[in-house]
Amino acid sequence: MKKKSRPFVWPVRVYYEDTDSGGVVYHSNYLNFMERARTEWLRALGFEQNRLAQESGLVFAITRMEVQFLAPARLDDTLQVSVTLVKQGQASLNLAQEIVRERDGRLLIQATARIAMLNRQFKPTRMPPAFLAAL
Amino acid sequence: MKKKSRPFVWPVRVYYEDTDSGGVVYHSNYLNFMERARTEWLRALGFEQNRLAQESGLVFAITRMEVQFLAPARLDDTLQVSVTLVKQGQASLNLAQEIVRERDGRLLIQATARIAMLNRQFKPTRMPPAFLAAL
Amino acid sequence: MKKKSRPFVWPVRVYYEDTDSGGVVYHSNYLNFMERARTEWLRALGFEQNRLAQESGLVFAITRMEVQFLAPARLDDTLQVSVTLVKQGQASLNLAQEIVRERDGRLLIQATARIAMLNRQFKPTRMPPAFLAAL
Amino acid sequence: MKKKSRPFVWPVRVYYEDTDSGGVVYHSNYLNFMERARTEWLRALGFEQNRLAQESGLVFAITRMEVQFLAPARLDDTLQVSVTLVKQGQASLNLAQEIVRERDGRLLIQATARIAMLNRQFKPTRMPPAFLAAL
Repeated sequence: MKKKSRPFVWPVRVYYEDTDSGGVVYHSNYLNFMERARTEWLRALGFEQNRLAQESGLVFAITRMEVQFLAPARLDDTLQVSVTLVKQGQASLNLAQEIVRERDGRLLIQATARIAMLNRQFKPTRMPPAFLAAL
Repeated sequence: MKKKSRPFVWPVRVYYEDTDSGGVVYHSNYLNFMERARTEWLRALGFEQNRLAQESGLVFAITRMEVQFLAPARLDDTLQVSVTLVKQGQASLNLAQEIVRERDGRLLIQATARIAMLNRQFKPTRMPPAFLAAL
Repeated sequence: MKKKSRPFVWPVRVYYEDTDSGGVVYHSNYLNFMERARTEWLRALGFEQNRLAQESGLVFAITRMEVQFLAPARLDDTLQVSVTLVKQGQASLNLAQEIVRERDGRLLIQATARIAMLNRQFKPTRMPPAFLAAL
Repeated sequence: MKKKSRPFVWPVRVYYEDTDSGGVVYHSNYLNFMERARTEWLRALGFEQNRLAQESGLVFAITRMEVQFLAPARLDDTLQVSVTLVKQGQASLNLAQEIVRERDGRLLIQATARIAMLNRQFKPTRMPPAFLAAL
């Protein structure tokens, strides 16, 4: 099953907590920014992860990520973080994500992520029909 | 010199990155939320910290903080983080900060912070006149 | 009930992840370092928090903290983080904590923390007798 | 130029700060653990990054990372984080990294990282001869 959606975009501001003494955003914090965008994308589709976990014991887990760090972001930058659905399975999704600096349109991060639906026992499981329909 | 301002309020959403395996926001992350609110308060007054550091070599540093953790925030909560100027000196500011959960208006965090202006040598220094005027 | 113990000391190395673009350790990360020292102090007393949570549903939560940021730590510094039991109640502990830089013995952080024992419903509860005895 | 070294291994303990409300280590924190291991590997080779930055204006930056999240780590776990030099160029290194849980020897993370040497202008530059010799 394949599907290519239009990108969902979420803005993120860079604060001191995100930077390191090299003067730029610490590399793993871009993954936090991309996770925020995925969370907001799910929320925009009608799915809050806290409720999903409490009501159905279902959580999304990342199983694979590939990240290219093309250029650094700095304190006070505003970033546009995108999520594009690339491939939709029964128990997992393949996403493409990019981070672009708003000020100059520069592409900073290019990434792919595979997320899987897990049950209470942390075993892969089918995504709820309502969720698949919303995608 | 004394001054009591109306509070500046900044919204913060709780993401997975902010929580811990106790099921609630990890305690030190509330300090990050309060720093974001201080940064946005400075920005609203016309001062970007990145520019201040690059143009004048001036940085704000926190010198003292007192925090009461009254109730925990959870994943997906929206929080209102406030900053109130309590006392204004020549080289430092005393601030009161609160974090309130939007959903039920519950006060989660009550804090005071003292921030000092430092020069390139990390020595306390007078705040720029334009900044004092803006306050 | 009062008690003053000898300090427990835990070493912490500063990595890039701990610093910010001001060139020093980001302020809230000192709280993480102090929490690591508290965790290792509990472990040295024979109590692993993961097991405590899983077997008895008990967790320690911080209810109040007061921190003085006296001087900054930098990348690659080795820090000595101490925990001293200042006051022991039935359901909470008052601790004094300090962070000293190993290289020059400089006191960077002076703090007090109050931690409370909570049950599964996040309500204050008595600490287990075995734990009180170990203190 | 090619070279395959024996792995360098660095132990990392999981604290509350590393976990999230899913009950496991938050995904991007594994990247922090891997960066700590790279830093300690460089230190074991005689290179402190803080000194390198201050004396020569040289910093290592990560340019690409590929991570497989095979199984989750939990609070109080002790992890063995490895670094293996896979390919050595004039201005960059390709590394393989793994994270294994000590308790049961389970492989949790498998990753590759490409790190590049940058000068003060954040431009790729040759690694110092002393460093290449030490490798």
